[in-house]
Amino acid sequence: MKVGIFDSGLGGLTVLKELLKVSKGIEFYYLGDTARVPYGIRSEETVKRYALECTLFLKEFDIDLLVIACNTASAKAGAFLRKKFPELPIFDVIEPAVEEILNLNPQSVGVIGTPSTVGSKVYKEKLLKRKSNIKILQRATPLLVPLVEEGFLKGPITETVLRHYLSDWKDKIEVLLLGCTHYPLLKEEIKRLFPDWVIVDSAQPLAKGLKPLLQREGNNKVHLFFTDKTAFLERMLTSIGLKEKRIKIVKW
Amino acid sequence: MKVGIFDSGLGGLTVLKELLKVSKGIEFYYLGDTARVPYGIRSEETVKRYALECTLFLKEFDIDLLVIACNTASAKAGAFLRKKFPELPIFDVIEPAVEEILNLNPQSVGVIGTPSTVGSKVYKEKLLKRKSNIKILQRATPLLVPLVEEGFLKGPITETVLRHYLSDWKDKIEVLLLGCTHYPLLKEEIKRLFPDWVIVDSAQPLAKGLKPLLQREGNNKVHLFFTDKTAFLERMLTSIGLKEKRIKIVKW
Repeated sequence: MKVGIFDSGLGGLTVLKELLKVSKGIEFYYLGDTARVPYGIRSEETVKRYALECTLFLKEFDIDLLVIACNTASAKAGAFLRKKFPELPIFDVIEPAVEEILNLNPQSVGVIGTPSTVGSKVYKEKLLKRKSNIKILQRATPLLVPLVEEGFLKGPITETVLRHYLSDWKDKIEVLLLGCTHYPLLKEEIKRLFPDWVIVDSAQPLAKGLKPLLQREGNNKVHLFFTDKTAFLERMLTSIGLKEKRIKIVKW
Repeated sequence: MKVGIFDSGLGGLTVLKELLKVSKGIEFYYLGDTARVPYGIRSEETVKRYALECTLFLKEFDIDLLVIACNTASAKAGAFLRKKFPELPIFDVIEPAVEEILNLNPQSVGVIGTPSTVGSKVYKEKLLKRKSNIKILQRATPLLVPLVEEGFLKGPITETVLRHYLSDWKDKIEVLLLGCTHYPLLKEEIKRLFPDWVIVDSAQPLAKGLKPLLQREGNNKVHLFFTDKTAFLERMLTSIGLKEKRIKIVKW
């Protein structure tokens, strides 16, 4: 079985990593749009156009299902892609995180993400639809992606930025939802600063949900495609411990 | 006379602002590639391709001269564009800053910019070629662009980040060169933290150098084009006090 995954850049590799852990005999095609990252600061129209181009690229490999491994693209282009490709099963990173939070049954949740994801209110609306008495705070935290991409996973700058964004939520939330695939790389530092919170990200719930579909024969195969070869690429592959290195740079 | 200006996004508006101050009767066509900003993290090949597309777009308006208002594009694609368009006068933001620094005749200079600009060593090489006994320190400061784009022009985060990047240069340099068109918006804060430094940016020296060419009859006109309509657009236009609002969103 062939699974296509796309992301605005490198953050979606955290999703691929979790999928690989639960898969057997699956061929993964990952496309990171590093020539146009980040998506989270762009308009809905532009995100839809980019997401469509990524999907068309992956469909050339006859993929059997598609994973949108980017919260911004999931929020802004998920419905659009499902309508455009009714025959293709499309998973995104929003639903699994919503399920995970509902399983935890908290009274209060904080959602952080890119300006685009948070502006879409997708998490807030989906959670309230299923559990109307939950208190939801949300906040755009746009400096976190550059911090991760620059390798500032801890230290004084990261601490200052995290405290700036999150300190006033300290006693106000029980669960923090990491609404961006870059943020899991900051999980340890967030845990250290705010030890009382349960931290939820999309990658593990998504992998758990997809696991039954991903059991075949033999080893997994990974094909990595990026639209630009950037300095962060090797660093990110190393930092998430992804060994596969069949990397191709594609242009459009 | 028609002047084309392009930048990876909004930073080049600081250059346009200075050019408007010294111009009379000039028609400016500004293109900000907000759908693909930032350029500073991309490969040379990709920056060249994007810069070429920007130039071809502006050439459609029969521009008489071109200003590359982006340090990354100047460093990575300046020579490439000059070779490609031998008939078009092309100015960039590197040369004027180099001239300004040589006029100041310092013993030591610190250069900050995007990873791409700093990696190109363009400032270091051009300065050393003209004045071999100058001490040049350089450093990539990639968090500064996101800070500016998010409106963190002062405050604890900006101070922490600036101190992180610059504190060890405190007694080592006389002049700091802001090698990115976003950085002038942080000038006041840098001055406050490091009052002994002379701070040089490209916009004013470029405007000073171009002034003799930009004296015609009547009022200036400004046409602003962007490849995406982002949340930062209005904020940036306001923060640099640009009143002209003939904005078009172009797609490619």
